[in-house]
Amino acid sequence: MGELSHIDKNGRPRMVDVGEKADTKRIAVAKGSIFMKPETLRRIKEGTMDKGDVLSVAQTAGIMAAKNTSSAIPMCHNIMITGIEMDFIMDEENSAVHIEACASTVGKTGIEMESLHAVAVAALTIYDMCKAIDRGMRITDIRLVKKSGGKSGDYLGG
Amino acid sequence: MGELSHIDKNGRPRMVDVGEKADTKRIAVAKGSIFMKPETLRRIKEGTMDKGDVLSVAQTAGIMAAKNTSSAIPMCHNIMITGIEMDFIMDEENSAVHIEACASTVGKTGIEMESLHAVAVAALTIYDMCKAIDRGMRITDIRLVKKSGGKSGDYLGG
Amino acid sequence: MGELSHIDKNGRPRMVDVGEKADTKRIAVAKGSIFMKPETLRRIKEGTMDKGDVLSVAQTAGIMAAKNTSSAIPMCHNIMITGIEMDFIMDEENSAVHIEACASTVGKTGIEMESLHAVAVAALTIYDMCKAIDRGMRITDIRLVKKSGGKSGDYLGG
Amino acid sequence: MGELSHIDKNGRPRMVDVGEKADTKRIAVAKGSIFMKPETLRRIKEGTMDKGDVLSVAQTAGIMAAKNTSSAIPMCHNIMITGIEMDFIMDEENSAVHIEACASTVGKTGIEMESLHAVAVAALTIYDMCKAIDRGMRITDIRLVKKSGGKSGDYLGG
Amino acid sequence: MGELSHIDKNGRPRMVDVGEKADTKRIAVAKGSIFMKPETLRRIKEGTMDKGDVLSVAQTAGIMAAKNTSSAIPMCHNIMITGIEMDFIMDEENSAVHIEACASTVGKTGIEMESLHAVAVAALTIYDMCKAIDRGMRITDIRLVKKSGGKSGDYLGG
Amino acid sequence: MGELSHIDKNGRPRMVDVGEKADTKRIAVAKGSIFMKPETLRRIKEGTMDKGDVLSVAQTAGIMAAKNTSSAIPMCHNIMITGIEMDFIMDEENSAVHIEACASTVGKTGIEMESLHAVAVAALTIYDMCKAIDRGMRITDIRLVKKSGGKSGDYLGG
Repeated sequence: MGELSHIDKNGRPRMVDVGEKADTKRIAVAKGSIFMKPETLRRIKEGTMDKGDVLSVAQTAGIMAAKNTSSAIPMCHNIMITGIEMDFIMDEENSAVHIEACASTVGKTGIEMESLHAVAVAALTIYDMCKAIDRGMRITDIRLVKKSGGKSGDYLGG
Repeated sequence: MGELSHIDKNGRPRMVDVGEKADTKRIAVAKGSIFMKPETLRRIKEGTMDKGDVLSVAQTAGIMAAKNTSSAIPMCHNIMITGIEMDFIMDEENSAVHIEACASTVGKTGIEMESLHAVAVAALTIYDMCKAIDRGMRITDIRLVKKSGGKSGDYLGG
Repeated sequence: MGELSHIDKNGRPRMVDVGEKADTKRIAVAKGSIFMKPETLRRIKEGTMDKGDVLSVAQTAGIMAAKNTSSAIPMCHNIMITGIEMDFIMDEENSAVHIEACASTVGKTGIEMESLHAVAVAALTIYDMCKAIDRGMRITDIRLVKKSGGKSGDYLGG
Repeated sequence: MGELSHIDKNGRPRMVDVGEKADTKRIAVAKGSIFMKPETLRRIKEGTMDKGDVLSVAQTAGIMAAKNTSSAIPMCHNIMITGIEMDFIMDEENSAVHIEACASTVGKTGIEMESLHAVAVAALTIYDMCKAIDRGMRITDIRLVKKSGGKSGDYLGG
Repeated sequence: MGELSHIDKNGRPRMVDVGEKADTKRIAVAKGSIFMKPETLRRIKEGTMDKGDVLSVAQTAGIMAAKNTSSAIPMCHNIMITGIEMDFIMDEENSAVHIEACASTVGKTGIEMESLHAVAVAALTIYDMCKAIDRGMRITDIRLVKKSGGKSGDYLGG
Repeated sequence: MGELSHIDKNGRPRMVDVGEKADTKRIAVAKGSIFMKPETLRRIKEGTMDKGDVLSVAQTAGIMAAKNTSSAIPMCHNIMITGIEMDFIMDEENSAVHIEACASTVGKTGIEMESLHAVAVAALTIYDMCKAIDRGMRITDIRLVKKSGGKSGDYLGG
């Protein structure tokens, strides 16, 4: 197992130097879910079908969060994101919305945190917009499901 | 069940007017967890006991995120936070860190999103600082556990 | 005619002191338009009627911009916005989208700049999302149409 | 006519992938105007000739806005701006200030939105600093007048 | 001597609760200096007398920094600033620019950090704008010189 | 002596064009100090040795400030920082904490301002966290001590 690369020799935080790394195409896919009452999901869905669109706001928030990741996560490098796509699946059986973000960059580091941050903020936005009718929603299983590019090689999670 | 208050009459988003609401003391407690390999938890713990302190950075990030909530969550009001405390429990049995944030305000609205945002960003910070040794961490069960103050009354979650 | 209140006695900028002003309910309505090719308007409209929704993103951007006004406009006070609503009218006759923002606060100053900023950023967002098919769009007639509350009294523009 | 590139296949927003695009030198020039009372223009002008300088603050605000464009415009890529210049023309005949911004980058996308955003925020800053004496100012004709570099080729507007 | 109020009982950071404090009028004055070559000071001065105005940009930057203080300083409360004034003295004898910021608020906490932050960022802006001709400038003696309002009473420094 | 490169031909600010500059590896080291009462230093030190860690928060704040430099300093380019390390020396003889930041980038411009900004904000954070017991702290001697890379060549200060 490697070192905890963000901790310097005095045990205090640093932002690790990636200056020697080559620029490569990098892609990361993250997922997460928000569980809610069936009634809440129904209302989101009707909104989507009509004109109201909780998921459109959540998607916009997630994309903006991805771009803001290095301001929110202290030791995370600022990078230039080349693209982000998000997808939402309304799961009536489990009364949940499943969220997926796929972000890409061409650079020396990244792009896991950007995808994970997009998913987290999209989920929080759904919570915010529906909390008046359902305070018991749970945001869960935010994880990296796929990563390609970079020195550490590809990763495939669950 | 009430209305989805963030959706206006055309089905498009709005920030609901809270101008008529009274200023009250409001407190919200949110929790969440990040599951990891036992080795990762051990390393965080040793860092804490020694000098390195992943959790101190995560706590700082969470507190800063709370203050930045209205910039990240589109329909969330900007409010003046009067205090935030965070707590981290290292759970060896389940190989997880449990995160709690308690934020307070005196105002017309809030403060659930600030506490939830603090927990989410603290968890993402732990992920970021440990991802070099453990890409399979999962952030889970982010939820509101308690809220007091405001017109909608108190809430007690699980 | 009064003084240019943002210029101090040395001719350099300052943020004027509003500490002695009373807290009052304040509302400001701003409007603006973006002119485009008929084809562009048709595409926005179809997007809206289907599922794609340029205006939903523009509305989200406008609301977020309103909250960020004091960071963008140097001498503008940071205030707590109590509510924002935006409206978009698709005008086929003139091949334009007309944008309106109504923001409110309870405070010592504001809230004209927040409404104007919301309109400007919503218009820029429409430009950004449609520029691949129409670089000649024009953003025009951003102005204050109504203001109530505050010491300077009500204002009614055109 | 091409596709509305920011709308994904489900009709929801995305940030288009520019990872395959080559790095090229890109320049964009945007213009806009703010119309006001002759008295207001005279006061700005005297300020400039003396020491007070509304336009210096507006110019600073415009340049800072250009750098912040990807945080304000949801689907806009974050890019590294290599330079920005702004110019202001005081037009007594029409009682207006005409604003021009010229921003450049070396990259895969941009830089129209940065120039347009600089013009819009500079105009809003003038409004903010003069609104105590003239609430009827109008910000108008914000448009792209020139763009060079990038795959879509050069553009020359009016 | 009191407690280090930002450190919680586990030795980790928190944002102290000010919810029980009364709203009072608060003023804080901070000062600092930047020392430079005589030639650099001469150039700044000529710029000011002509049209170029390093100090106008520095003043704008300082005021914007004051408003952004709670985003930059982790445990600092976000407050509503009611006014800020800055002053610059060009000291030829010591070849320095002396900077003063006076910020005010009506609230439960603050406003020392806002004034100190304004001074620091104004000094850094002067450094940035002159570094092409003078890399050896020193920013020094940033300190609180006066504070009034609040429970801890008035403070008068040197 | 060269030109004040941030002032344009009309004497107003601009962000200088670095588009023609080559990408080179750049490193800048900045230092600064904060002087305080012996008691304050002792408390910080005990906090560090125990569990509380003012310096860990200050270090996190400094690193985040480095990444945010182009938002705070008006004419400063936004660049991609490849790494930052900070170091703190507790100097009992002089009752001070000495702060050092070393930031690096691979790019066309930078990285002095990022290192200087990190030092300044770290010092302000120490002030903020200890001000309850010591309002008389002084932040001093913020300066560039070393720079390498870039067309202007290496610099070695004191």
